[in-house]
Amino acid sequence: MNNFEYYAPTRVLFGRNTEAETGRLIKEQNCRKVLVHYGSGSVVRSGLLDRICKSLDAEGIPYIPLGGVVPNPRLSKVREGISLGLKEGVDFILAVGGGSVIDSAKAIGYGMADEGDVWDFYARKRTACACLPIGAVLTIAAAGSEMSNSSVITNEDGWIKRGYSSNYSRCRFAILNPQLTCTLPDYQTQSGCVDIMMHTLERYLNHGTNLKMTDGISEALLRTVIKSAKTLRDEPENYEARAEVMWASSLSHNGLTGCGTDGGDFASHQLEHELSGMFDVTHGAGLAAIWGSWARYVYKERPDRFAGLAAKVLMVPEKGSDQETALAGIEAMEDFFRSIGMPVSLRELGIESTDRQILELADNCSFGNTRTIGIVKKLGREDMAEIYRMARG
Amino acid sequence: MNNFEYYAPTRVLFGRNTEAETGRLIKEQNCRKVLVHYGSGSVVRSGLLDRICKSLDAEGIPYIPLGGVVPNPRLSKVREGISLGLKEGVDFILAVGGGSVIDSAKAIGYGMADEGDVWDFYARKRTACACLPIGAVLTIAAAGSEMSNSSVITNEDGWIKRGYSSNYSRCRFAILNPQLTCTLPDYQTQSGCVDIMMHTLERYLNHGTNLKMTDGISEALLRTVIKSAKTLRDEPENYEARAEVMWASSLSHNGLTGCGTDGGDFASHQLEHELSGMFDVTHGAGLAAIWGSWARYVYKERPDRFAGLAAKVLMVPEKGSDQETALAGIEAMEDFFRSIGMPVSLRELGIESTDRQILELADNCSFGNTRTIGIVKKLGREDMAEIYRMARG
Repeated sequence: MNNFEYYAPTRVLFGRNTEAETGRLIKEQNCRKVLVHYGSGSVVRSGLLDRICKSLDAEGIPYIPLGGVVPNPRLSKVREGISLGLKEGVDFILAVGGGSVIDSAKAIGYGMADEGDVWDFYARKRTACACLPIGAVLTIAAAGSEMSNSSVITNEDGWIKRGYSSNYSRCRFAILNPQLTCTLPDYQTQSGCVDIMMHTLERYLNHGTNLKMTDGISEALLRTVIKSAKTLRDEPENYEARAEVMWASSLSHNGLTGCGTDGGDFASHQLEHELSGMFDVTHGAGLAAIWGSWARYVYKERPDRFAGLAAKVLMVPEKGSDQETALAGIEAMEDFFRSIGMPVSLRELGIESTDRQILELADNCSFGNTRTIGIVKKLGREDMAEIYRMARG
Repeated sequence: MNNFEYYAPTRVLFGRNTEAETGRLIKEQNCRKVLVHYGSGSVVRSGLLDRICKSLDAEGIPYIPLGGVVPNPRLSKVREGISLGLKEGVDFILAVGGGSVIDSAKAIGYGMADEGDVWDFYARKRTACACLPIGAVLTIAAAGSEMSNSSVITNEDGWIKRGYSSNYSRCRFAILNPQLTCTLPDYQTQSGCVDIMMHTLERYLNHGTNLKMTDGISEALLRTVIKSAKTLRDEPENYEARAEVMWASSLSHNGLTGCGTDGGDFASHQLEHELSGMFDVTHGAGLAAIWGSWARYVYKERPDRFAGLAAKVLMVPEKGSDQETALAGIEAMEDFFRSIGMPVSLRELGIESTDRQILELADNCSFGNTRTIGIVKKLGREDMAEIYRMARG
């Protein structure tokens, strides 16, 4: 069991119609002017943006809107937000959307609190010392950015996707109304469920000796998301299942499921970031496409942890050895992905990769052969290339 | 599933030797002078207080000590702390101890931030609008006060024990080093385990429709504490088991296990507060002594929830009906209490109560027949008296 720090200060308001409280929560932050950041037209068409603006008006809070954030959010939009925010004297950012919008808001927050180039943080050239305060109204349960310390941005110059994490960017509040996710297309819902599961799975499948408390929470979370994802396949407007998934999205990535671990093994996420950076695929679907190959490549290092996943989450009957149970568990997880319409290979994800592209992905993921990833098994450039190859399908 | 707010902003530093970080964490709070609040001589004898003072000295932080907090902490000590703190210009309170010390620190914090009588808050005459910032170095895993919003104080004038809860009193940080609990006497360890379990059990046994996510976390927590309590009976210095119990103590009462419930049914706690107010018994032991009688009095209102507890936490095989499974679960819980040396009646708790005392307990608990308690089943004065009678043993 490792020492750990747990810090998840975000105030969560959860449930039906909670977005009506946005103005009141921002008022408590004593800010002068708010940047209302959002993505596509759906928050406009659904009337959500209008309701939120009315809630700000009711409290007499001035604001300036900035829409147009796309999935795998772009650095150019971040730069636009920084310029606009500085020009307008904004001192609070409200993100209305999913992980992409919140991540973009965090990057704008870093950039506005600092005189240098915001990409420096994501390129690991500098460390952030501050971030503008951020609040979120969540419309997609997936990334967990509403309670996490992380954000991921794509630099169009080379289509490089990089994450940066610091407690400065933790949202002051997060409004989670599951109703807002009831109209999401199935593919997005299920991609979200995979992303949520991965945030816990990557902490759960580690190389240490966990707290049983943490393992128990992780297993409960994974079982809950699996069950709810199946329900939502048939009943997309099932409020209870939407609520389970939304709350799981926040708990999965706020640090709770990593307490006492060795930090977890985020190789799947890192391998996927290169996929969605290069091919602009949906992040959760990309994770489903790569996970099985990663798991088969590394499970022999910790068959006990993979066997635990099989037995306690996927309800696979125990086999003759941990290795056999572990393999059956990996197959059961892929069967689950298939059952919710998720890809389990790059081909199923819609990527017909060339040999050159496989090497390029591995080169990008290893930062030009200068870093390894993973904890269960350390992966260098050649390992990465082999996993991408195994995932081709 | 109910709407809910979740807010647990306490920064937790968990693990071996983490108390050495006390000075650094307080430094980050930018305070002028610290009141170091503690209980008996054990924190002095163990050298803990000395290590903490050295850590403050190293950061150049001035402080003034105030010891002498007793279990079921007293209002007189709170008043002493308020006077001392005001005289000395204290602007941060560091609690070094268990729930009693942290609760006393919270009450001092309320009192110092307000000109009126601090008991007014506990007597429900006024609502607190502020509290001095508080940090905690935990030495007993039990009350969960290190992450909760609540504190409980005993007024010697009438020996009335009352709780008050507000987010203002949430600790800025909590230092949780399981090593510090390894030398606790078994009775205190096991009383702590019961208290921890009750904070979740009282949220779990409710009258609503829970989030499955919340139920899963609660069941994992209860199973973990049951297993660890048994381990600690034989191996009091088992660090891993101490760590499980300590982390469970914080998660059990920080709000996590109540998300989406109807608020939970805290009748057992309220019934017990009168016991420890009148007879000065150990809180957790008092809870064990009263819980079975409360459970038998109310379980028919929600046999499904009690049956769930039996099956998923106590591993009781399902019987012919929920009611039968529920009853078997209540018996299994009492068997568990016995197995860790906890009382399951007032007599085993050491209380030979008179009929007059039973009525007085019920009168106190019902605030002179002016309030009911409980959610699974609403309990008036006569119900309370009957439960106390059933618990006599």
